[in-house]
Amino acid sequence: MRPSARGAVDRLFHPASIAVAGSLREARFGGFVTVSNLLRFGFAGRIYPVNPQYREVLNLPVFPSVRDIPEPVDLVVTMAGAAAVPGIIADSVQNGARAAIIVSDGFSERGQEGKRLQQEVTRIARAGGLRLIGPNTIGVANPAVGLITTPYRVTYDRMISGGIALCAQTGLIGPQNMPLEETHYGWSRMCDFGNKCDIDEIDLLDYLAEDPDTKVIALHLEVIREGRLFLRKAREVSARKPVVVLKPGRTPQSRRAMASHTGSLAGEDRVYDAAFRQAGVIRVDSFRELIDVPKVFASQPLPRGHRLAIVTISGAAGVMGIDVAAASGLALARLSPATLEKLAAISPVLAGNPVDLGPGLPAYQVPGGIAARLPAMIEAILNDKGVDCLAIACPWGVRGKIAEVFGPMVRRQMKTMAVWVAGPSLAIAAEMNREFESIGLPTYPDGDAAIKALSMAVRYAGIREGLRGPSPSLP
Amino acid sequence: MRPSARGAVDRLFHPASIAVAGSLREARFGGFVTVSNLLRFGFAGRIYPVNPQYREVLNLPVFPSVRDIPEPVDLVVTMAGAAAVPGIIADSVQNGARAAIIVSDGFSERGQEGKRLQQEVTRIARAGGLRLIGPNTIGVANPAVGLITTPYRVTYDRMISGGIALCAQTGLIGPQNMPLEETHYGWSRMCDFGNKCDIDEIDLLDYLAEDPDTKVIALHLEVIREGRLFLRKAREVSARKPVVVLKPGRTPQSRRAMASHTGSLAGEDRVYDAAFRQAGVIRVDSFRELIDVPKVFASQPLPRGHRLAIVTISGAAGVMGIDVAAASGLALARLSPATLEKLAAISPVLAGNPVDLGPGLPAYQVPGGIAARLPAMIEAILNDKGVDCLAIACPWGVRGKIAEVFGPMVRRQMKTMAVWVAGPSLAIAAEMNREFESIGLPTYPDGDAAIKALSMAVRYAGIREGLRGPSPSLP
Repeated sequence: MRPSARGAVDRLFHPASIAVAGSLREARFGGFVTVSNLLRFGFAGRIYPVNPQYREVLNLPVFPSVRDIPEPVDLVVTMAGAAAVPGIIADSVQNGARAAIIVSDGFSERGQEGKRLQQEVTRIARAGGLRLIGPNTIGVANPAVGLITTPYRVTYDRMISGGIALCAQTGLIGPQNMPLEETHYGWSRMCDFGNKCDIDEIDLLDYLAEDPDTKVIALHLEVIREGRLFLRKAREVSARKPVVVLKPGRTPQSRRAMASHTGSLAGEDRVYDAAFRQAGVIRVDSFRELIDVPKVFASQPLPRGHRLAIVTISGAAGVMGIDVAAASGLALARLSPATLEKLAAISPVLAGNPVDLGPGLPAYQVPGGIAARLPAMIEAILNDKGVDCLAIACPWGVRGKIAEVFGPMVRRQMKTMAVWVAGPSLAIAAEMNREFESIGLPTYPDGDAAIKALSMAVRYAGIREGLRGPSPSLP
Repeated sequence: MRPSARGAVDRLFHPASIAVAGSLREARFGGFVTVSNLLRFGFAGRIYPVNPQYREVLNLPVFPSVRDIPEPVDLVVTMAGAAAVPGIIADSVQNGARAAIIVSDGFSERGQEGKRLQQEVTRIARAGGLRLIGPNTIGVANPAVGLITTPYRVTYDRMISGGIALCAQTGLIGPQNMPLEETHYGWSRMCDFGNKCDIDEIDLLDYLAEDPDTKVIALHLEVIREGRLFLRKAREVSARKPVVVLKPGRTPQSRRAMASHTGSLAGEDRVYDAAFRQAGVIRVDSFRELIDVPKVFASQPLPRGHRLAIVTISGAAGVMGIDVAAASGLALARLSPATLEKLAAISPVLAGNPVDLGPGLPAYQVPGGIAARLPAMIEAILNDKGVDCLAIACPWGVRGKIAEVFGPMVRRQMKTMAVWVAGPSLAIAAEMNREFESIGLPTYPDGDAAIKALSMAVRYAGIREGLRGPSPSLP
């Protein structure tokens, strides 16, 4: 039996106090950056910089060692050189710390000596009841409390909190590398596992299943050491919340590459494929999908069936959408005669599903044109009993009026929706995406991605019914 | 035998004079917009607005009919109501015009009456030797001469010219919908076929094969009426230039939808699949790929083999890259001992392919750090005889120095390269993409897309050798 890490992980994401042990030189990387990130993001807990060579940094007193901190801290973050880490971990045990994040690299990913060092550190922590994240990680983030441990400079100073927990075996998902300021969907928790010498995906699943802030769990996993346990846990969690997984390593070459950067061996891909299916896990194939797919789960109700309506600004895009829908298991909804009548009353060129706004667009090229007509169109489609989910290609004309046009239907939350904004300005599209996401409608870089995300929501609705009991209606 | 349209198509893209027949009301759509677009984009030919109700528009004299224009025009563009189009086409014939673009909708895509009207228009044009694009189209563009016929307002007023010819059965690819100002790759020609009552993909292929400005041809085709002829022509052209095709309609549902918005029936998908393979055509699966894949052909030398090197900023992204490479037929290059030695001399953590800059990034977090070291790294990889193509994940540190860092190796044009810029600011990534593309390095929204584009270049290199003669070395 593995010991439960739930309490330690909870403190890790809500620390009342943090020690930061590492270089405090004013640079672009290191302890100085971590401390200043915490201050900039408004972390309200106590911060204890640790370094024997400094007395004060950023107006905070510096402690020569973690042992010298006058209280047991909830979290120690260290980016000191690998050789110094065993000492810092021993000091943390002596301090009575609950958890530590070892940002430092030079462990199992760097040869035999690194492996030995990692074992030593793990042994010290385990003996002292200290739980570890890492080594070789940028750590964690909890936007709701301004918690951010990355040792890299972040170009903005606000993270939006939301329902997505994003955990990965890479720092690529960290705030220093994600355009969180220019997008507008939120995280509940972020965690980079690093080398996973202690706390791993099973601990996170166990914690996140109970976390009321987390609606969907997105995991990037290069290595799963305890396959059986993961399978059982993932299945248990999937009955409550969607678990979206990116598992690379489909080829022997990539498995070798994973071994070299994480220091662990990955198993055969087909084993994982089967395991994920049994566990009710939604498998995605790229980092883009790992980031984008969870948005539909975080903000939308689950679809009751697989019948898709498409609102498009071009017949050709509608046709592509139908192909993507069919390939991902969705059926094109048949709009009822009553709905078709309502649409025709708004514009005679709105003939069916896909509902193509294109031919009517010239007529709407008056101020307020499309924005004035869109609510009635969308409402007519959403009210159709034959429609379970809706992909919308949004025309430019509603820029600045998105809350007004879409707000009321979002508040009623009737059907699952996903949006694609395309057009001649990347900057305006980004602005409209923010408008949409701030009222709770997920946006996607193209129609294909929006429809695929809806198909994952349909798939998960089926999985959940299957895990909870017999499912009569879903494919 | 179909009559050659090459001369007419050439004039269509280089008209000395254009008549614009349609509403001249100052609005967001229509003839007024087309005329003002031509003026804003610096079209240098003569512009003749045509409308019986106006005397002057935008400081240009207006003619009551195309018949009244004092010279035979090269091109007539009309967005008049469908019922008025036969008259305008008859007038154009009388004027001696070479070609006409029928922007107006309400033809074969709109029922029996529309079909009849389209036949009538086509008959009048054919009898008079006038070639037609459309109906139901936004027309053409030729950035090099400021030619733009779209009746929609465009939010910018400059198009970059380049080597990509982009032709589609939709206006979705038009300047009014493409962020050409914020990206930085150029078109040679753009053409929306619309309903294809006359000039079609075979005419465009025939013309573009000989067009010295066009290096790669990207086609979106919902319907191919003369399959055999297309096959022969595409094969002929593919021996000289890559032909990238997006052909939707993989499902009966999408084929029905195509029929309703273009008024034509599409054939079975598997027939096209086989035809494309025989013709040496590169088939892509989304509008995104149709836009992105040609960039590698327009700017890069063809690879001599299929051995890929990857420069990454994260081990995890490198692993994903290997999976994508393997799935798309690329092999991971083995760097020579000499190359590995050179890399290790630059940084001891650069251990092999993928070349992971990640572990070294903290050390480069000094001004000029990564930018100063990157050229030697990239050069070492490009000089390795075991490397045919290179995908680069570019770190932030080279922002503003891309021409300096990458310019010299681009000028030598040794190997096929593709770039991915990721990071915490969409705006900065867009700016860096522009920097890269303005020195001729194609950029992609993620590493997967960059590697897939390189794999298409490898595939085409093989196709071309196969079409030209036996290929001993390529897969």
